[in-house]
Amino acid sequence: MTPHPDVLARARLLTDPALGTSVVHALERITGRPARRSHGTGPDGPFVYVGAALPEPLRTRDLVWFHSVNAGTDALLAGGRWPEDALLTRTVGRMGERIAQYAAAWILAECQSVPEHTAQHARAEWRRLPAEFVGGQTVVVHGTGHIGSAVAGLLRRLSLRTVGVRRAPGGETPHFDHIVPAGSAEEAAELGAARWVVSTLPSTAATERFFDAARFTAMSGASFLNAGRGATVDMAALESALRTGTVRRAVLDVLPDEPAGPQAPVWRLPRTVVTSHSAGITADEDVVTDFARCWEAVVRGRAPALTVDTARGY
Amino acid sequence: MTPHPDVLARARLLTDPALGTSVVHALERITGRPARRSHGTGPDGPFVYVGAALPEPLRTRDLVWFHSVNAGTDALLAGGRWPEDALLTRTVGRMGERIAQYAAAWILAECQSVPEHTAQHARAEWRRLPAEFVGGQTVVVHGTGHIGSAVAGLLRRLSLRTVGVRRAPGGETPHFDHIVPAGSAEEAAELGAARWVVSTLPSTAATERFFDAARFTAMSGASFLNAGRGATVDMAALESALRTGTVRRAVLDVLPDEPAGPQAPVWRLPRTVVTSHSAGITADEDVVTDFARCWEAVVRGRAPALTVDTARGY
Repeated sequence: MTPHPDVLARARLLTDPALGTSVVHALERITGRPARRSHGTGPDGPFVYVGAALPEPLRTRDLVWFHSVNAGTDALLAGGRWPEDALLTRTVGRMGERIAQYAAAWILAECQSVPEHTAQHARAEWRRLPAEFVGGQTVVVHGTGHIGSAVAGLLRRLSLRTVGVRRAPGGETPHFDHIVPAGSAEEAAELGAARWVVSTLPSTAATERFFDAARFTAMSGASFLNAGRGATVDMAALESALRTGTVRRAVLDVLPDEPAGPQAPVWRLPRTVVTSHSAGITADEDVVTDFARCWEAVVRGRAPALTVDTARGY
Repeated sequence: MTPHPDVLARARLLTDPALGTSVVHALERITGRPARRSHGTGPDGPFVYVGAALPEPLRTRDLVWFHSVNAGTDALLAGGRWPEDALLTRTVGRMGERIAQYAAAWILAECQSVPEHTAQHARAEWRRLPAEFVGGQTVVVHGTGHIGSAVAGLLRRLSLRTVGVRRAPGGETPHFDHIVPAGSAEEAAELGAARWVVSTLPSTAATERFFDAARFTAMSGASFLNAGRGATVDMAALESALRTGTVRRAVLDVLPDEPAGPQAPVWRLPRTVVTSHSAGITADEDVVTDFARCWEAVVRGRAPALTVDTARGY
């Protein structure tokens, strides 16, 4: 719930000790009050907290607003009961653009055999390799929100046909050529037609192992990119699909268990690259920009656009 | 010179023995006459030749039109004096699109550390790597013709600022934000500002070692992509620039000496990838499509758009 402007006016500003000094100074300028780096104890009276995780002693009714420095708030919400009435906002930053460029890079790299050329070069081997045109290929993007739309927008500029899969109707989806409901026969048909499947799904109770055997076997040689959350993938089903070939290649930015240790089986999946959760890093400037946007809304008594629905999880 | 439609009407069709059967059949359909695979002897009277190279005995006044299955005609023209009055056309096909996707792939791959992630995966190493935004970066494209324009068009859709360098004024350049003359102070300034320099230059007497020490030292950390011709680059100057860092990385599709043998020094250049002349392969369908376009013009007495200026070399 958005705090009342009067409450916000007298709220203290607490910050995660991990935040950089320049971020803290920017937050002080935006809010017009000194920040206190919190080491787990809250002030008397209302406070706003900016950080990654919420220490247990701060889960009180005095927390009026938590601004997350990350886009994904699943770990934060899983950490305990969310304090009643506390507003939760998140940093999206240029996350959409970042993840879109990540997806475009890996798609074009596969079409142009970038890893194979790099390996040939290392072997001092001159060998012409074929390239694949992306124009006209179908990409299915799971998630049609901010990030999924940014991915579709960029891939459409590369002349791909963009199909969005969404779990609930509603909202504008201007960057998609076609929208299908999750779990429908249309989704299965598009997975069969797709050259690429890109997931931007958040991790919630409803998306756990969303990419299961049924979805992976509905594909006929699509390459699968996961730039959402690792828990949305049934890894055993993905492995089978890679072995039978219904999934051509996998590019996994996220895994159910992160970080993957050197013995993790994921490193031995065929035709797979794991990219160590690098696709959607938020920069300090993103935190400051998005907090400032939220602040501007809250002081006017409006709900910020970056508000997280704590029941839905994103 | 474009042959007169009457001459074309009675010209024989000769084809390179290396052409595939399906291409030859398509050429027969387009021209409405049987093709003869030439093994070095010409017919009596006017003939049209479709192929890669021109056998010496066919360099006669009876050759009225040579259609090259390649985009680059430098090797063809270097092979001997071009027969007076013979029209020369070339296959460009979807070369522009192909080379544009090649350039976009390598640019995004560098921004997203695709080779580094691939190497980390092979070592079972989880390590977050930074990514670089392409939006707003400057790319200087040498060559503002069909191919250079396609490269600029695609990179502009990725939000790069596109600067074209051209040697002679004239022609429309809609995909460029800015055009500068080759050899000008403006070119040097743009090379200094560029994050990327992409060459699409053909090989002619005027472009030999065009990329020399002056150009490479004018760069301040640009990555250099050559999808044009190898002879346009002074390789010693490139090596120095890679060692001093004025060139950050090099992606070379073409080399002065191709193919590079396993002992060639180019494999040992720092931060370089050689891609074995894979960027602009012409497909059979490209040859047929472009020949058909030329044929349609010539039967109407018009000069085909794909005509090569044999004096200029492209």
